[in-house]
Amino acid sequence: MLEIDLIRHVKVKGKPALYGCTDVMPNTAENALLLERLVIQQQTNKAYHSIICSPLKRCQLLAKEFSTRCNLALEISVDLHEMNFGCFDGVTFDELYFKATSAKAEQQGDVNTEQYGETELRWSQLEAFLQAPAEIVLPEAEALSDFYQRVKRAWHRLIDQQLKVLTQQRESQAPKRILVVVHGGVIRMILAHILQLDWQQASWHQQLKIGHGSISRIVISKPYQDDQLHQQVTSIAMPFLEDF
Amino acid sequence: MLEIDLIRHVKVKGKPALYGCTDVMPNTAENALLLERLVIQQQTNKAYHSIICSPLKRCQLLAKEFSTRCNLALEISVDLHEMNFGCFDGVTFDELYFKATSAKAEQQGDVNTEQYGETELRWSQLEAFLQAPAEIVLPEAEALSDFYQRVKRAWHRLIDQQLKVLTQQRESQAPKRILVVVHGGVIRMILAHILQLDWQQASWHQQLKIGHGSISRIVISKPYQDDQLHQQVTSIAMPFLEDF
Repeated sequence: MLEIDLIRHVKVKGKPALYGCTDVMPNTAENALLLERLVIQQQTNKAYHSIICSPLKRCQLLAKEFSTRCNLALEISVDLHEMNFGCFDGVTFDELYFKATSAKAEQQGDVNTEQYGETELRWSQLEAFLQAPAEIVLPEAEALSDFYQRVKRAWHRLIDQQLKVLTQQRESQAPKRILVVVHGGVIRMILAHILQLDWQQASWHQQLKIGHGSISRIVISKPYQDDQLHQQVTSIAMPFLEDF
Repeated sequence: MLEIDLIRHVKVKGKPALYGCTDVMPNTAENALLLERLVIQQQTNKAYHSIICSPLKRCQLLAKEFSTRCNLALEISVDLHEMNFGCFDGVTFDELYFKATSAKAEQQGDVNTEQYGETELRWSQLEAFLQAPAEIVLPEAEALSDFYQRVKRAWHRLIDQQLKVLTQQRESQAPKRILVVVHGGVIRMILAHILQLDWQQASWHQQLKIGHGSISRIVISKPYQDDQLHQQVTSIAMPFLEDF
């Protein structure tokens, strides 16, 4: 049996924005706290056997330090990075407003003319995307369907690889526990895939909050036959940084 | 702001079966443990302000004792009981086998003749239902769509009532916390309703495990306007009886 904990990185350094493939740093204090909690848990019967992480710093920093501190194998899975939000990626909401207004000012030599209309356009693009993420593709961004397919492939590879290692190395009945340090969007897509839900629905992305530092748990077993793999979600977004 | 914790009752007394409206007792030791945990939490800043529960004993016993111990208002919501599984409800899987074989034996005067076929029929009804719970209605059972509608109505009533009380009584900004002691099926339906998911899908019922004594949390707020209610799921099936 495999027990896979998907943990979301902590809050990032930076003003409010849509952070996707932008390689922003995690909040230092929160990251240190999360690391300590993981190290403490490692001394219980809930210890992890290995770590997998997204290549982005907000995930990789924690994974590397945890791996070093507890002498755990670490794998960086390039396909587990967050969705690419194109020209909106990493642009703070403040900056988005400023850029829109200064572009207009340069063009027209008048900072006050039609600012509102231009700003509205940018905000409305974002809003349209958030309302219908599967229908709207932001400029130069990854389509939601491509993101889903990428995460699904990465998940299948991860499972195949872990099951292979399990068959080769372990004789015991105790579950192998793996920590996957990733992003909110990636966790939502993995959950939707296992639960066979409609990942295109805006409500799945808006009404389900995957908190920073929260853990979602997947249990994988082969209960009946060797070729039948049973994946079950046993918890979603358990707070791990703070008491619930 | 309202914070509603949906807690599933503990394991029940009785052999493995489909327990729906059958009023089976909860496991005494586990129920006592869950009560102690709730009482301890009540002394923190995560204290509940009131309790609502299903009328069935496996939920009501805990809710009543918690209400008495901590002097909390308790409301029994009749429409929050588990789905009614009709002639399969509360019949242990062992008994199901026995009934099927003895009925056949009486009819034919030969306990060995075609036993297998009759047992298969009963099991196959159950299996068909579990594979397609929205399409198959078990004999004398509640249809999944009726169950969904009942739970949805009960949820809306609960929210309306709590918001009314909130408006009348509370001036502070601290969220009001409510504990709802219910069943796995009821929790799944409430979550599907809020997340606007397809509650007819078998995968939602089979691939998502709502553990005994686990807590799923809903946060309800009115962020922009008075008539706009925002419901968000912030955790699903957090273990509360044991450490995760």
